[in-house]
Amino acid sequence: MPHLTLDYSSNLTTLDADRTLLALNRQLVESGQFAENDIKSRACRLEHYRIGIEPAPRAFAHVTLALLSGRTPECKQGLSASLLAVLQRAGLTLPGAEVQLSVEVRDMERASYSKAVIGD
Amino acid sequence: MPHLTLDYSSNLTTLDADRTLLALNRQLVESGQFAENDIKSRACRLEHYRIGIEPAPRAFAHVTLALLSGRTPECKQGLSASLLAVLQRAGLTLPGAEVQLSVEVRDMERASYSKAVIGD
Amino acid sequence: MPHLTLDYSSNLTTLDADRTLLALNRQLVESGQFAENDIKSRACRLEHYRIGIEPAPRAFAHVTLALLSGRTPECKQGLSASLLAVLQRAGLTLPGAEVQLSVEVRDMERASYSKAVIGD
Repeated sequence: MPHLTLDYSSNLTTLDADRTLLALNRQLVESGQFAENDIKSRACRLEHYRIGIEPAPRAFAHVTLALLSGRTPECKQGLSASLLAVLQRAGLTLPGAEVQLSVEVRDMERASYSKAVIGD
Repeated sequence: MPHLTLDYSSNLTTLDADRTLLALNRQLVESGQFAENDIKSRACRLEHYRIGIEPAPRAFAHVTLALLSGRTPECKQGLSASLLAVLQRAGLTLPGAEVQLSVEVRDMERASYSKAVIGD
Repeated sequence: MPHLTLDYSSNLTTLDADRTLLALNRQLVESGQFAENDIKSRACRLEHYRIGIEPAPRAFAHVTLALLSGRTPECKQGLSASLLAVLQRAGLTLPGAEVQLSVEVRDMERASYSKAVIGD
């Protein structure tokens, strides 16, 4: 916890997944809400996607941040806005196209979350 | 918003991901619930899957539709049923196998959802 | 229902996705909570991931179990703990690295879940 997932359409060829994940994680560390080594993030490049039904060129990048339940709405809004700002600074453009950036914050049920750490 | 995800087992070799996403998006546009260019859909072909524990040939296709919170149960049931009907019309068969089709509608917390649009 | 997803960082080269999915499914069958052929599981090997911000070698495997709403907290805790135990027995190690294992149990809204079965 937290678990972050970055989904992005494959036409965002300027998106550097590893660099963007690091920038997102830095933002989460700076929030002061999480232990540094607890932040687990992954990026999925989507080969098959569709935005709407028109043939216009379109792209999107979407972050889902899954947190153990219990944080305040204000805290979650702040995290969401700050992650969106990271996406906005990532230089994601597609000439002639609309690029949609979005962030969802999702609660994970605390009572049934299990975790173990191996090694090191 | 909305975000649609289609997961399907890779033995559904007749599934045309791009065509199916377009059909699903058309259905969402027809529902009148969404702006056309807001509908962001992706398909994931699953190379590693397992249905139950028996060696019988089995397949599945599963849609998750994530919506900003606030819609009525009736609205969500209607969207779910209509997307399932799209899957049923997609000609997904696997000779001698059971193919399971399913649709989940999931609320996204509205207060902490963030969005920005770049370009165009 | 249920839908199980196993995400794991690609540095866990000893993880056999098919074998691990079968072990997870066996555990779900043994719980007595589900019809054998209803259990739909998939594994996603993550090529692009980042744990925290430090360069230390780290790995993770994360299971999400999505259930139709209505089960008790105790039932969900039991399922979560038993799936974590499967991960712990899977021999996931990375020399000199910390490997984080986790399980989330997530409710799916029952009223808007749709399903159909084709063939067989």
